[in-house]
Amino acid sequence: MGLTIVGTVAFDNLTTPFGSKMGILGGSATHAAMAARFFCPVSLVSVVGDDFSPEIMQDIQNAGIRTAGVQVKKGFKTFSWTGAYEYDMSQARTIKTELDILNVFEPQIPVDQSDQDFVFLANLDPELQLKALAQIKVPRFVALDSMNLWIQSKKEVLLKVIAKANLLVLNEAEIRQLTQETNLLKAARRVHDLGPTWVLIKRGEHGATLYSKQSFFSVPAYPLEEVFDPTGAGDALAGGFIGYLANTQEFSEINLRRATVVGSCMASFIVEAFGCERLQGLTIDEIEDRFQEFISFARVDMPVPVWDRRMVSVS
Amino acid sequence: MGLTIVGTVAFDNLTTPFGSKMGILGGSATHAAMAARFFCPVSLVSVVGDDFSPEIMQDIQNAGIRTAGVQVKKGFKTFSWTGAYEYDMSQARTIKTELDILNVFEPQIPVDQSDQDFVFLANLDPELQLKALAQIKVPRFVALDSMNLWIQSKKEVLLKVIAKANLLVLNEAEIRQLTQETNLLKAARRVHDLGPTWVLIKRGEHGATLYSKQSFFSVPAYPLEEVFDPTGAGDALAGGFIGYLANTQEFSEINLRRATVVGSCMASFIVEAFGCERLQGLTIDEIEDRFQEFISFARVDMPVPVWDRRMVSVS
Repeated sequence: MGLTIVGTVAFDNLTTPFGSKMGILGGSATHAAMAARFFCPVSLVSVVGDDFSPEIMQDIQNAGIRTAGVQVKKGFKTFSWTGAYEYDMSQARTIKTELDILNVFEPQIPVDQSDQDFVFLANLDPELQLKALAQIKVPRFVALDSMNLWIQSKKEVLLKVIAKANLLVLNEAEIRQLTQETNLLKAARRVHDLGPTWVLIKRGEHGATLYSKQSFFSVPAYPLEEVFDPTGAGDALAGGFIGYLANTQEFSEINLRRATVVGSCMASFIVEAFGCERLQGLTIDEIEDRFQEFISFARVDMPVPVWDRRMVSVS
Repeated sequence: MGLTIVGTVAFDNLTTPFGSKMGILGGSATHAAMAARFFCPVSLVSVVGDDFSPEIMQDIQNAGIRTAGVQVKKGFKTFSWTGAYEYDMSQARTIKTELDILNVFEPQIPVDQSDQDFVFLANLDPELQLKALAQIKVPRFVALDSMNLWIQSKKEVLLKVIAKANLLVLNEAEIRQLTQETNLLKAARRVHDLGPTWVLIKRGEHGATLYSKQSFFSVPAYPLEEVFDPTGAGDALAGGFIGYLANTQEFSEINLRRATVVGSCMASFIVEAFGCERLQGLTIDEIEDRFQEFISFARVDMPVPVWDRRMVSVS
């Protein structure tokens, strides 16, 4: 019943309109794990360099995340992303990446994790995602994230991973790029044809949308006065989603909708502070309160009949 | 208990990826009226030229819309908009407007309509909106739409109309332009400070969001495989919204949420065909069915407790 998250652990250097912060803990797997840990046991599979101090590793462990699958590569620097957000915060600008370590990374799932039920393949080279997934015996639910770089440069292998995933998580631009289809409903259907039963589209300030073959569910983004740092919002969305699934072990349409709301909660928290600081200090009570707020945003309480037909002569 | 809609009646020349159509019935007031007529008696206040045939006027009347307030100006051509949509359909490109007639238009509310309870000031020069509104004695609910042109060129008089409105309807770019605030929650609060209790933000393919001072409600756009012609979607949203309010005569938060869903239904229909063709042939049964679909998109059926806290050690 545990969850394995495969992806990057990074040091991020971030500049937002609210300030800059250097060398903070980041990476797709870290953000997702920090969100998922509230719902189920989480194991991280990743790689770091010898600049990654034991204290930071201890911080991750103290957050309840297992790090047996995190390799430490001597002579390498931890993956690093330097990025900036402009005033409207919707688009990150990459200034620099240091990713030598990812070229020598061979993901290894610890033997006692090879029977994990839940897997999240966070954003990473799809070849590495495939290698990691091959080491897990019979996963019950595999969620997959990717990005424009892999869609463009490694589409063939990415399609192989997609074929093995139950859920594909992409933003609007990425799903359009992958499927060559601007209409999102059609794009989601194309993804269904590629394998995944579920498609979760990340829409940033517009929220998130879940498509199954038969149904459609949409959650708005939490209305925040300040988005402090959008980094990791998509990872937290996916991490909360699959963490909730691992907790509840139920794959009905309605439960995946709940998972979408839980993920949206986690995304709304992570953007309130730099990196995953907000998730590190978060409590389950705060999550439950926000979850109820999300539910209230959609409340309509519709009586039957909806309206009085007698007021007009239109048939 | 009637609804007066003030705005333009037009001949549109439209080009979309699905084809072109010339001289079709359009205009902000027409689109809104064609949506609102399913819910309450609707009176149109506008102006047309002598190229507007009695047959077309009869078509409007046959749709259940009162046209006593539609002036026919001899020697003028009906307002005309020529526009095109590119492949992604989110942005209209104006090719040509013929708007001489709007420069000589003095809206006149028929005397027996001066005690109308509900008013929708559809997109029009705010000076004309103000003149029309002054002729209605004690409206119970005034909804107001505008556009970038008026925000830029006539902001002072627009602010006067806004001060008298209960609901302001704008798209995201317009509310940001009006309030000089990119964060939509803050932008909505600035509008509340200008007068309106309610702010309805049109988000195109992302749906619509309703802000009161205390609350937030969001509806996704209906998932359509083809948006045939987006013209009038915002007008149909607002028309359905205020028509529903006029029908139900209730101004609670929950009822304005329902109005937002009804408006979203009407918007989802109008884009399925050129101009307001789809609304002209629509039935109330179709609207009720789609309304129930919209409600189903947000259904989560959350049990208590939400999740099992025993699965993790995080407090």
